[in-house]
Amino acid sequence: MSSSYSNYTNSPCAACKFLRRKCTSDCVFAPYFPPEEPLKFANVHRIFGASNVSKILHEVAPHQREDAVNSLAYEAEARLKDPVYGCVGAISVLQREVLRLQRELEETNVDLMRYASCLGGETSAYGGRRG
Amino acid sequence: MSSSYSNYTNSPCAACKFLRRKCTSDCVFAPYFPPEEPLKFANVHRIFGASNVSKILHEVAPHQREDAVNSLAYEAEARLKDPVYGCVGAISVLQREVLRLQRELEETNVDLMRYASCLGGETSAYGGRRG
Repeated sequence: MSSSYSNYTNSPCAACKFLRRKCTSDCVFAPYFPPEEPLKFANVHRIFGASNVSKILHEVAPHQREDAVNSLAYEAEARLKDPVYGCVGAISVLQREVLRLQRELEETNVDLMRYASCLGGETSAYGGRRG
Repeated sequence: MSSSYSNYTNSPCAACKFLRRKCTSDCVFAPYFPPEEPLKFANVHRIFGASNVSKILHEVAPHQREDAVNSLAYEAEARLKDPVYGCVGAISVLQREVLRLQRELEETNVDLMRYASCLGGETSAYGGRRG
């Protein structure tokens, strides 16, 4: 999506409405903060501040701005739900889940190798999986 | 750690030094931004802004402030390294890894059940693991 908002209408984007300023056709926020999603901007504004969001948008290539806004919106929502850990809480949960699955897979492979050795010559068919 | 900085000295904390303001004994930043770690504050300031960090610190209980600052510092560093995805990039990588491990474990369990059925009566010993 280009920074010049293709669906630009007379309604100000959610960011300009929130900041009570005129929304121009070259508004950096408009393509990513449509007026019908006011909470998306309110959240990123509350956690990062409008000027930091604008700075980040100017730092990244136009085709990456949508992804940047969506990841900022995700982080902001996570921080509002959990002011202590934000989305870092999700990272800890996922890291623990990866470790648990790796251990489980390792144990299952040990069982598999035990079966394979019971069946003797058939070991080549099931050589165990690597986690 | 309490909000009244026990190791308070005459050196201003990294936040007050950065913001060029007087660091008082009840400074909310001082316990978490020691003067010898100037980058920690510079990063969170650049991504969240000092006033948003201060707001978050006042929102959470004093015993959770250290965790809150560390998760904010982690998020800020991730966003500076990857302005498009920040630490949400790590979440995507971990989510894909969890899915891959779950599939791998499922396939290994199918192999295990096949072996168990070959060995007949011994199935109770290895009933397959749940991912």
